[in-house]
Amino acid sequence: MSFMQALRRRWQQADTLVCVGLDPEPAKFPAAFAADADAVFAFNRDIVDATAQYACAFKPQIAHFAALRAEDALTRLIAHIHANHPDVPVILDSKRGDIGSTAQHYVGEAFERYRADAVTVNPYLGRDSVQPFLDRADRGVVILCRTSNPGAGDLQDLDVGGRPLYQLVAEKVARDWNEHGNCALVVGATWPEQLREVRAIVGDVPFLVPGVGAQGGDAGAVVSNAKSADGTGLMISSSRAILYASNGTDYAEAAANAARELRDEINRHR
Amino acid sequence: MSFMQALRRRWQQADTLVCVGLDPEPAKFPAAFAADADAVFAFNRDIVDATAQYACAFKPQIAHFAALRAEDALTRLIAHIHANHPDVPVILDSKRGDIGSTAQHYVGEAFERYRADAVTVNPYLGRDSVQPFLDRADRGVVILCRTSNPGAGDLQDLDVGGRPLYQLVAEKVARDWNEHGNCALVVGATWPEQLREVRAIVGDVPFLVPGVGAQGGDAGAVVSNAKSADGTGLMISSSRAILYASNGTDYAEAAANAARELRDEINRHR
Repeated sequence: MSFMQALRRRWQQADTLVCVGLDPEPAKFPAAFAADADAVFAFNRDIVDATAQYACAFKPQIAHFAALRAEDALTRLIAHIHANHPDVPVILDSKRGDIGSTAQHYVGEAFERYRADAVTVNPYLGRDSVQPFLDRADRGVVILCRTSNPGAGDLQDLDVGGRPLYQLVAEKVARDWNEHGNCALVVGATWPEQLREVRAIVGDVPFLVPGVGAQGGDAGAVVSNAKSADGTGLMISSSRAILYASNGTDYAEAAANAARELRDEINRHR
Repeated sequence: MSFMQALRRRWQQADTLVCVGLDPEPAKFPAAFAADADAVFAFNRDIVDATAQYACAFKPQIAHFAALRAEDALTRLIAHIHANHPDVPVILDSKRGDIGSTAQHYVGEAFERYRADAVTVNPYLGRDSVQPFLDRADRGVVILCRTSNPGAGDLQDLDVGGRPLYQLVAEKVARDWNEHGNCALVVGATWPEQLREVRAIVGDVPFLVPGVGAQGGDAGAVVSNAKSADGTGLMISSSRAILYASNGTDYAEAAANAARELRDEINRHR
């Protein structure tokens, strides 16, 4: 089953649009992990097991693992998800982008090494830099469009013939790059208006929406502005608000509660 | 000494503008490495030792290591360069880009984990995504401007108020982002006219110039279009044409010859 098939099935069967982001920061881990040499894997595993029932996808962010030399923990974490929660696809959030011959090696990193179902990529280098990802029709390619950070507009809002650059990116992806139907777009929750504009351009191309929770985006506004015609079309990602909901012994239960509450808040607006 | 000081000193003292790219592809290694479990490190080490005298910088490309699970080899390779060729700075070519809180982890990856002197970054997410790198005044921040690949123009050439996007990026970097004087720009050798235009915008901001050799860019045209006022200002990068100059037992000598010839060709045009 392709990433897109798995995602659509998960949306329907589990009735959730929540994407659980896995951004390990050991300084925020519960005290119980202080003496655990394998804490990065163990903490994330516990979060995954506690939140899987509320998740349409898991999204490990690779910088958090790379800075900790924790490639092995990331590999085992994704294998754990595939083995124990096979209905929940995994998006490797790495935002890679390089010339075609090098992009092929990033394809190897994401799909062969880590066995991710989808990967985030940066469009600045143009289509041929994304093509090796696009060619993997069974995997998802989640392309940065309008990001959630304060400086997103520095380039993405520049006026190109009367429209902001991010809308051109959305159009290119929907009309040209999505030949295999395996593209999705990153559009930040912090910009509800832009979500609506991009949805109008791209039809039912799925959005990965970061920025709810710690970054201040409103889940209700995201849903009403950006859901697709059938009330799905969104992977609304929350990381810190779920992972670090509690740093006590109830961390897993608190994470599950936070994920469930986000799911319910989202579903009230669908 | 900061990256920029080290680079300028190296340009002068070694009289070379050649950046040796380290892109390991085991299938292209000489036969002698077929049985070497540590081939990725050993081959790159031999190339480094053979070419260091002709190099103003070394540039390991991280995807090539990541796809091979060779983080340890990359760490040891950079340590080897620092220990044995301390005058040659190391640019980690990773083209990272993410929101500020995540970018901080990529800073940790590049500068603490790998101990690189400089790193390539992607500007699509805007200034706050680059700021954690910019804040490290002693390290170099090499920002994608006009890349060397065929599809570079898909986004980078879009017309923004009468000028292509890459020129806006060049201007932002030179006027706003370069407060610590630690910025450089990626401008591809395959576009001599663009090199000239960007040079006119940014003064003596250094360029990392990929695309000579295997990608077809002409070193002479690069130098005449893009050198700075004092005849330096360039890190002209060649990877495959140096690394894989021979796959026989003379691989190191052939790599040294290729690097020396590129240095000489460049210097004839300075």
